[in-house]
Amino acid sequence: MKEFDLIARYFSRPAPAGFLGVGDDCALFGVTPGHQLATSTDLFIEGRHFLAGADPAAVGHKALAVNLSDLAAMGARPLACLLSLSLPRVDEAWLEAFASGFYALADQAACPLVGGDTTRSPAGIVINVTVMGEVRPEQALLRSGAKVGDDIWVTGELGAPDIALQLLQGRLPADTALLESTRPALEKPLPPWRFAQQLAGVAHAALDISDGLAQDLDHILAASRCGAELDCDALPLAPALQGLDSAVVRRAALTGGDVYQLCFTAAPERRESIAGLARDAGTRVTRIGHIKSQPGLRIVTADNTAVVLDAAGFDHFS
Amino acid sequence: MKEFDLIARYFSRPAPAGFLGVGDDCALFGVTPGHQLATSTDLFIEGRHFLAGADPAAVGHKALAVNLSDLAAMGARPLACLLSLSLPRVDEAWLEAFASGFYALADQAACPLVGGDTTRSPAGIVINVTVMGEVRPEQALLRSGAKVGDDIWVTGELGAPDIALQLLQGRLPADTALLESTRPALEKPLPPWRFAQQLAGVAHAALDISDGLAQDLDHILAASRCGAELDCDALPLAPALQGLDSAVVRRAALTGGDVYQLCFTAAPERRESIAGLARDAGTRVTRIGHIKSQPGLRIVTADNTAVVLDAAGFDHFS
Repeated sequence: MKEFDLIARYFSRPAPAGFLGVGDDCALFGVTPGHQLATSTDLFIEGRHFLAGADPAAVGHKALAVNLSDLAAMGARPLACLLSLSLPRVDEAWLEAFASGFYALADQAACPLVGGDTTRSPAGIVINVTVMGEVRPEQALLRSGAKVGDDIWVTGELGAPDIALQLLQGRLPADTALLESTRPALEKPLPPWRFAQQLAGVAHAALDISDGLAQDLDHILAASRCGAELDCDALPLAPALQGLDSAVVRRAALTGGDVYQLCFTAAPERRESIAGLARDAGTRVTRIGHIKSQPGLRIVTADNTAVVLDAAGFDHFS
Repeated sequence: MKEFDLIARYFSRPAPAGFLGVGDDCALFGVTPGHQLATSTDLFIEGRHFLAGADPAAVGHKALAVNLSDLAAMGARPLACLLSLSLPRVDEAWLEAFASGFYALADQAACPLVGGDTTRSPAGIVINVTVMGEVRPEQALLRSGAKVGDDIWVTGELGAPDIALQLLQGRLPADTALLESTRPALEKPLPPWRFAQQLAGVAHAALDISDGLAQDLDHILAASRCGAELDCDALPLAPALQGLDSAVVRRAALTGGDVYQLCFTAAPERRESIAGLARDAGTRVTRIGHIKSQPGLRIVTADNTAVVLDAAGFDHFS
């Protein structure tokens, strides 16, 4: 067996019935009639998207999670994924842990690995994941679908991944307990793929929070040609952040990236059905604001004081 | 505009009608009823798959071509592609040439770029392309479909990419004219994607020649549990190789990689229809052997002398 066949061996689990998986020139699988294919791809490079020496199981998990998050942001059901993996050398312990993290999430999300490419890299570790899902085109959650008067919602909690990153990068004073409680949100995000499928046809617009809530919400506002008002005191903060300086927490919640939860908009009449769908899916949802006709994003506190984010994402009251 | 938004700008041409392209969380497009999705992905890394300083237009072309070749090997019609691109720095001249090579082939193959990911890389240039196509599942050209008595065919010509590579790597004495005439086959392969779609439902098995004819054909033999006899004197050699040592040319044709033409098998009754389809598509096809029940690949000359390939791909008569 050639050295790089060995890599491929870790990713050759059989595909489910009805799928042609690893071992031919292409993978083959069906798309349900009436649905379109939804697809997204992400590069994941050592030293850029994860640190050298990062837990390989977490790297495998996250490389797939960030892609599942893109499917969730369209309201699409995962169908299958492809993995390209390039390593400087064959490290069986690394490969086994990486594959275990990747497959555990693929199984959980019913998104089987059906093909890929493995090669030696002259540089560091390079990972590319492509996901494919399906959604009824008339129900897909586009960035351009927000309507004036819509509620703005987020799934899950905000702030923890950014605080973990700040701790790891030494931008916050070392705090072992805080790192331990926030790190899972950074390293093992769990996008709400089940709930997201229920949102298709119910919400008007959605995207996943990867660069930070304020910045990402701006993409919806630009695509939908509208503005928004966010209630800064309504943001669902991760419980681990209790007791931290409130300005630090607010900044993390508004501008912190790597969240991989959804921000979506829906008509106020949908509040109850959304709450019910979220309950059924076990996903926390929080209303955090409204879509306005006036362009721009206005962030206010509960007592209606405006919060201004400066270029570096630091905020101050105005 | 942020530096890396600039990269994205080169790849934001509008998607065709019916496609949701670059700019949302996923691309969306339809798959024709009765068809399955065929998909493949390939990493392309500087220093491994192309040389630093390689012509960026050729790199863009080839990164897509090797993927189109995988679709052709299934008999699938191209639908769309995704591009992940990571660069150590923004080099606009490089980007413009790369994009022009990529888009020219995407246009030619009717395989629009509908999404991707661009990022800065701490190492060299990293490219990942994912292609998606469609094929009727009962007509897909699997590696496992070869039947005893089938003809073995190849499309196009053999040998030139390997001779070009040997010249570039100094494994053959410098020969400017020979390099000039063989290099396009190495750097700008043109897989027979039109003809391949006609082959679906006509041929029994197919794959694309990426590692070398003899080695790749072995994959069909293994998957189809059969053997084969190849007529070494029937191989369609690139005209540029005329006058070279015949052992060097034979080795290049049998074992040279990077060909991105098809090797396929079909019943002898299909000879005329295959020749007609190939004529219509402007693709050269050549019968080069037969599928046998006895396992293993036997390579013979026209006068029935056996040719044996050793581990390094060098052959000798036995």
